[in-house]
Amino acid sequence: MDNTDYYKTIAPRPTLCVSTTSKEGSSNIAPYSFATPLMMDPPIIGIVAGGEKDTLLNARETGDFVVAPLTSDWINEGVRSEVELPRGESEFEEVGLTESESQKIAAPGVKEAPINLECKYRDEFRIAGNFLLVGDVVHITVKKGALKKGRINLEELGTVGHVCGEEFCVANEVARIERD
Amino acid sequence: MDNTDYYKTIAPRPTLCVSTTSKEGSSNIAPYSFATPLMMDPPIIGIVAGGEKDTLLNARETGDFVVAPLTSDWINEGVRSEVELPRGESEFEEVGLTESESQKIAAPGVKEAPINLECKYRDEFRIAGNFLLVGDVVHITVKKGALKKGRINLEELGTVGHVCGEEFCVANEVARIERD
Repeated sequence: MDNTDYYKTIAPRPTLCVSTTSKEGSSNIAPYSFATPLMMDPPIIGIVAGGEKDTLLNARETGDFVVAPLTSDWINEGVRSEVELPRGESEFEEVGLTESESQKIAAPGVKEAPINLECKYRDEFRIAGNFLLVGDVVHITVKKGALKKGRINLEELGTVGHVCGEEFCVANEVARIERD
Repeated sequence: MDNTDYYKTIAPRPTLCVSTTSKEGSSNIAPYSFATPLMMDPPIIGIVAGGEKDTLLNARETGDFVVAPLTSDWINEGVRSEVELPRGESEFEEVGLTESESQKIAAPGVKEAPINLECKYRDEFRIAGNFLLVGDVVHITVKKGALKKGRINLEELGTVGHVCGEEFCVANEVARIERD
């Protein structure tokens, strides 16, 4: 196995759609599977951006971005949000998604998503040619039924993880493992 | 939902066991689910360490660490590796795992793991009270049958993701989603 394929062994990775707006007000959405929580309290999230494209540029410029964990009811639209349109054309419309108004920030969330995490740009780190976009989670919008026992209701929603290429996994069952 | 519970919506997250040795030669292993690939080429991985504990200290001191994606055949041992023993006592033995010799680095891998990623310490970033440990993947050891179509054979192995607390997910089925 080539070392550069190592990420295909770290799978499935949660698929997160990140939405932003440019200073001029045009919206953008793109899916990421290189991403992780960075801290629980304070709540800090990290998204690995492959370059200085819309997500990173918009988050830098406006300070705002929304993270929506992808679930099975909008799996096709979420995956298709990787399309890249020229700035000024809405990718939401192109892929069949609807913008929702956020509560604490200007960037839109995804109306179809059961959960939207509103984030404020905090920092970024350059790692070789990539950028780790770091944000504070400042507000969470949750649709009715989207939570179970205080976490995402994956049994009902089916959370979408990425393996590689066109291969994904939908998680809808929990296994209990005893911890000390 | 409290903002600090946001990570319970980013789930399941891949569970990775990270093994190291101290300068004095005592081995350590611990599971992480705040972790992500940071770059494909060059292959760079990130592990979020909750503090200056054994994994981070050993990786800093020796430059070496091994990342083993948790799979169902050693799920109990992998989860139990969160036990914290005083330095000098092997957590491998305590949780019923066996050290395997690495090819390119001094830190041991996990004999029971189908895949071990050998990593060299590259950098670290402080994020509030946590640390992002950043490593270059320098070698991958793969057991026979552990790969399928060039990625982890999750259908056979069942990769283990963490939701929260004692709730985990085992992924063993792939869904194909068309990409442009």
